[in-house]
Amino acid sequence: MKVVIIGGVAGGMSAATRLRRLDEQAEIIVLEKGPHVSFANCGLPYYVSGEIAEREALLIQTPASLKARFNLDVRSESEAIEIDGSAKRVKIKRGQEIYWESYDSLVLSPGARPFIPPISGIEADNVFTLRNVVDLDRIMAFADKQQPQKALVIGAGFIGLEMAENLKRKGLDVTVVEKAPHVLPPLDEEMAALVEGELLKQQLTLLTGLSAVSFKEGRVQLEDGQELATDMIILSVGVQPETTLAKKAGIKLGLRGGILVDEHYRTNLPDVYAVGDGIVVKQQITGEDALISLASPANRQGRQVADVIAGLPRVNQGSIGTAIVRLFDLTAATTGLSERQAKLAGLKYQVVHVRGNDHAGYYPGATAVLLKLVYNPETGEIYGAQGVGQKGIDKRIDSLATAIKGQLRVADLPELEFTYAPPFGVAKDPVNMLGYVALNVMEGHSEMIQWHELESALGNGYQLLDVRGPEEYAGGHIAESLNIPLPDLRQRLSELDKKQPYIVSCASGQRSYIAERLLKQHGFKVKNLDGAFGLYSQIRPDAVVKGN
Amino acid sequence: MKVVIIGGVAGGMSAATRLRRLDEQAEIIVLEKGPHVSFANCGLPYYVSGEIAEREALLIQTPASLKARFNLDVRSESEAIEIDGSAKRVKIKRGQEIYWESYDSLVLSPGARPFIPPISGIEADNVFTLRNVVDLDRIMAFADKQQPQKALVIGAGFIGLEMAENLKRKGLDVTVVEKAPHVLPPLDEEMAALVEGELLKQQLTLLTGLSAVSFKEGRVQLEDGQELATDMIILSVGVQPETTLAKKAGIKLGLRGGILVDEHYRTNLPDVYAVGDGIVVKQQITGEDALISLASPANRQGRQVADVIAGLPRVNQGSIGTAIVRLFDLTAATTGLSERQAKLAGLKYQVVHVRGNDHAGYYPGATAVLLKLVYNPETGEIYGAQGVGQKGIDKRIDSLATAIKGQLRVADLPELEFTYAPPFGVAKDPVNMLGYVALNVMEGHSEMIQWHELESALGNGYQLLDVRGPEEYAGGHIAESLNIPLPDLRQRLSELDKKQPYIVSCASGQRSYIAERLLKQHGFKVKNLDGAFGLYSQIRPDAVVKGN
Repeated sequence: MKVVIIGGVAGGMSAATRLRRLDEQAEIIVLEKGPHVSFANCGLPYYVSGEIAEREALLIQTPASLKARFNLDVRSESEAIEIDGSAKRVKIKRGQEIYWESYDSLVLSPGARPFIPPISGIEADNVFTLRNVVDLDRIMAFADKQQPQKALVIGAGFIGLEMAENLKRKGLDVTVVEKAPHVLPPLDEEMAALVEGELLKQQLTLLTGLSAVSFKEGRVQLEDGQELATDMIILSVGVQPETTLAKKAGIKLGLRGGILVDEHYRTNLPDVYAVGDGIVVKQQITGEDALISLASPANRQGRQVADVIAGLPRVNQGSIGTAIVRLFDLTAATTGLSERQAKLAGLKYQVVHVRGNDHAGYYPGATAVLLKLVYNPETGEIYGAQGVGQKGIDKRIDSLATAIKGQLRVADLPELEFTYAPPFGVAKDPVNMLGYVALNVMEGHSEMIQWHELESALGNGYQLLDVRGPEEYAGGHIAESLNIPLPDLRQRLSELDKKQPYIVSCASGQRSYIAERLLKQHGFKVKNLDGAFGLYSQIRPDAVVKGN
Repeated sequence: MKVVIIGGVAGGMSAATRLRRLDEQAEIIVLEKGPHVSFANCGLPYYVSGEIAEREALLIQTPASLKARFNLDVRSESEAIEIDGSAKRVKIKRGQEIYWESYDSLVLSPGARPFIPPISGIEADNVFTLRNVVDLDRIMAFADKQQPQKALVIGAGFIGLEMAENLKRKGLDVTVVEKAPHVLPPLDEEMAALVEGELLKQQLTLLTGLSAVSFKEGRVQLEDGQELATDMIILSVGVQPETTLAKKAGIKLGLRGGILVDEHYRTNLPDVYAVGDGIVVKQQITGEDALISLASPANRQGRQVADVIAGLPRVNQGSIGTAIVRLFDLTAATTGLSERQAKLAGLKYQVVHVRGNDHAGYYPGATAVLLKLVYNPETGEIYGAQGVGQKGIDKRIDSLATAIKGQLRVADLPELEFTYAPPFGVAKDPVNMLGYVALNVMEGHSEMIQWHELESALGNGYQLLDVRGPEEYAGGHIAESLNIPLPDLRQRLSELDKKQPYIVSCASGQRSYIAERLLKQHGFKVKNLDGAFGLYSQIRPDAVVKGN
């Protein structure tokens, strides 16, 4: 058996090494257009600041090491330029040399390439993208030689913000421009607001809801007319499947040009398979087509396609999409659908937020964890979750991702038994609390109002009642709110009006929920502000006033 | 409705506060024998060393704060001394005062008390247990006044070792005596060996497989005759349900004296419920009766019994048992069944170990994570998991606990999509790898031999083949092993004998697995040493020799 694999990074290399473990006799050829195979693409931004100090650390394997360990024929700087599906052969270009290589099975793992936005002047040599070590070397050589002071990052997705952080850590003055209304578009607006707060605290300049239109002589013009001076530009506005070769070969493409494969990674060409960022996958929650550019699914797919080629029963079950980013002192992560995606998919959904501690508050160093759950309010199906905080975000989102993959429901979340000791967690983990809160809403014990509904509710006759202590209230509260601290509430019910609908708030939503239950049972009409003042003040800082 | 709750910590207080949120009118009385309610019992050991500096931090709520916030009638230093089930009333003793209180519903949350082993002289005033703040105050007062230099901890479970660590941090010379063959009996022997390594590194003295038999004039005598001098003793040999009151009232008891309840927490007495460490629960994996003394289930049960009393449909689904401990620089955690428990339960099981990094190896600060999975080799049902390492153990065990609760199978583990960025994880997480490795065994691609089987296998004609590099091998290897580095293996096959069965090993089991696959396909008879040299050398350090 002779297998040719096009693409020598995550998906392609996982396929090659697994195939060798399954078949010692197979001839396995890996073609990689660039000079490096199996490099640490997720690590590239950290080399910019020197946080990863050694370039060699990024180069995990070499053709020689792969030959010795796996008997792979790895050909770097070898571009597949044509697939002849009927003759089952690939045309390869290496420098001036062009030749054909036959295959019994062909695996395409072309990945995705940076999308280049239509900005005039963008071909300048101080404009960069970051996809591989060659790109990184270009950036580092430029930085060494030109000593840029100012950098502009266009695109505030995960990689754009990682680049922004690392350029800042390197000492540059960094501005981020993002077309969407907020940074990290995979997150919802109120969660992203916390990330924006951290970036501003770290002295980055953020310009959201804006595109760049031209670049000339060190000046970027934005669509609203403002001009910014910069010494270099990083383009990070997303990726698109690298499928020029596949298209030319007559391989069927789908969503946004991604390669269409069946559940066994088979394209429409016989014995031609595809995996990784270049293929269309099934979003497991909606069942819809999706493009998901993440290392974990790519690695899994690569391994699975080797199993399929070797005759093992493997099926691509699709992906839910789980991602995380560390930005200075903050971590933000997401799994499954965001609220925006649930809405776009036409799903009936409810949202709850929970703020807790990453570990027991009485043990030193506890920090706040903000979690959001998106779920079906009738069935309890979990659509997605997001988290932002300094510590312990990864593990909560990992558990929730596991819950989604396992089709657990909202009612199952309180049942989860997590590791608990004071340095690690809390006896009722924020993930358990998401379940309790969502169940309270589903069972009618609590009615939530979301941050984006507050303004109109207050305009429509609701009165905001803040049940925090007087010092907390004086330190900052929403204008025209009433303050009755929770411990005083039972004694001061006579100050409230049963004809007046109330919205209760506190710092996190926990005390206000207790107030909501108390008031409801005394005959008041009341809703709880989900996420409470803590969340609202992050996304609407202008609405906050101080004093009493 | 009048509800009396006996026990004002985790389960009891969760029941009281939830009940208030559901029923503003109910009369809720909480009886607590001790002076403190709702204290942070899991935090007590950390106050010994000063890691938790403020005693007040441990006292989360007071009767006054609970009155103000939840309108609870909390009566501390009030011991329920008799239950009159037919008249539905409780006899209460507070100081000299004794009175009856009637109830519509009664909730018992008595907890568990330290088991006192039969050691003569143990009533001395420098022998302590640690269950509550009163015990802690006694220990601290003794330490302040007597300035002990040497401490002996009897019992190396989670709390015993936390106490040992904190006494050591306080500057004492600490010896730990454990009757079981290894510390942390909930973990299996080879996982506990790593913890023992850390404790020895931190200069603690460990004496396992031994009981203390007497204590007199500052000297402890062990069963093997040796005597140890100590200034104080901490007894931490486990707990037993505190059910004297329940027994006297005619409430049926089960396993080791635990209170028997149905799935709605009802005892055999009408309108008398019980929750927390004192009740017998269903071990969810085996379906067997179990006593589980952990904060998370106790809190959940407390909340659920309030729901039951308020008429909501809540069922105790049982517990799987998840626990974690930080000991100096190391973390150890477990969920579900250990190998020993699976064996005792008569289950057919297989074990695999995986060693990976907590985060990407090319990003600074990566440390080793050792995970163990216990599963059914036919169905793939996951019975349990354990983890030991410096970082990232909590999140792996949390995900695995979620997988067990969600009844995921081994084949589902590779499908889990975890948060991955270089500071947080690896593209193929150790949890994914557990699934891959277990599947390889289930599908016949790999045959494992366990650490405890190695010696007899080598005695029965197997040859050990170490495929690490020559420097690694020289740094320490198992005696009489052959060394052929993996990259050289294909070229040196002629040095091996097809009639000779081999066991392959490396550092973690990954390279040896590649070697196993290679050799199998070349017609050799070969098994992989699960956990490889890295694990074996921890538990059998005497078997390690250096040089070539």
